Amino acid sequence: MRVLGIDPGTGRCGFGVVEKRGNQIIPINYGVIETFKDQSDLERLNIVYEGIGELIATYRPEFMGVENLYFNTNITTGIKVAQARGVILLAGYRQNVPIISVTPLQVKQQMAGYGRATKKQVIEMVMRMMNITRKIDPDDAADALAIGLTAIYHVEHRSLFEREK
Amino acid sequence: MRVLGIDPGTGRCGFGVVEKRGNQIIPINYGVIETFKDQSDLERLNIVYEGIGELIATYRPEFMGVENLYFNTNITTGIKVAQARGVILLAGYRQNVPIISVTPLQVKQQMAGYGRATKKQVIEMVMRMMNITRKIDPDDAADALAIGLTAIYHVEHRSLFEREK
Repeated sequence: MRVLGIDPGTGRCGFGVVEKRGNQIIPINYGVIETFKDQSDLERLNIVYEGIGELIATYRPEFMGVENLYFNTNITTGIKVAQARGVILLAGYRQNVPIISVTPLQVKQQMAGYGRATKKQVIEMVMRMMNITRKIDPDDAADALAIGLTAIYHVEHRSLFEREK
Repeated sequence: MRVLGIDPGTGRCGFGVVEKRGNQIIPINYGVIETFKDQSDLERLNIVYEGIGELIATYRPEFMGVENLYFNTNITTGIKVAQARGVILLAGYRQNVPIISVTPLQVKQQMAGYGRATKKQVIEMVMRMMNITRKIDPDDAADALAIGLTAIYHVEHRSLFEREK
């Protein structure tokens, strides 16, 4: 079972391709789709859209796991990230890849066992579960692996996570 | 000068094609891209994306005017509208149509002369300026005409409206 996990963003959109074979969890690839400040918002949206398309074409995931948004910080940034999430969903939909939405809380619970886990704890769990010894850089890539893995558990256990319809 | 004005939304995404010839303001077409509750969020995003693409292909606007978002009501709805706005921007960008962002405040100021104008006042001004005598239904279509017209004034007067970069 192979999933493409996505941590939505415009500056850095994390991705993690995770495969589960029996009890083995294999990180196939991970990184970020990166855009730059001198690029327009429109260019950046397009780069994210095309980047997701290329990842799907390359890794042929059975489904995608995409983190839900929550606005607790900057509303302007939040709107931009939501716009990026829109084109991410569109890219998956147009290539017939089913999409699972997971919340940050679900990722923490799944990875670290409790909802108040820190970002650092989640990343440590990702590295341990996938036998990754080198620091994952940047964090967005590690987040995307965690999101992908959470989506796999969802599909396996038909838990109460919400499926993006 | 021809513009495609867009009032972003998922349930109803208003559009208004407006042309300015000298002092004449002509509403070429207006309406809504409509989606339905029994459709998935993903389908709805795709319908909006394809709908914008078809409007561009049909009416060949020189630019688009797209309303900015502000979140003063429901945050969940806000995220969905922002996701829809993302695919709207993507559709314009990928068809090489420049995009002007206008805020609700700018639309009110431009159309009714002051920022505290009501929705009803804005719609009355739209109808008067474009010689539309039949009630515009739904309001989203009238809003889109107002957004398009505001974008035209922006382009004509190089005012301080922000261009979506």
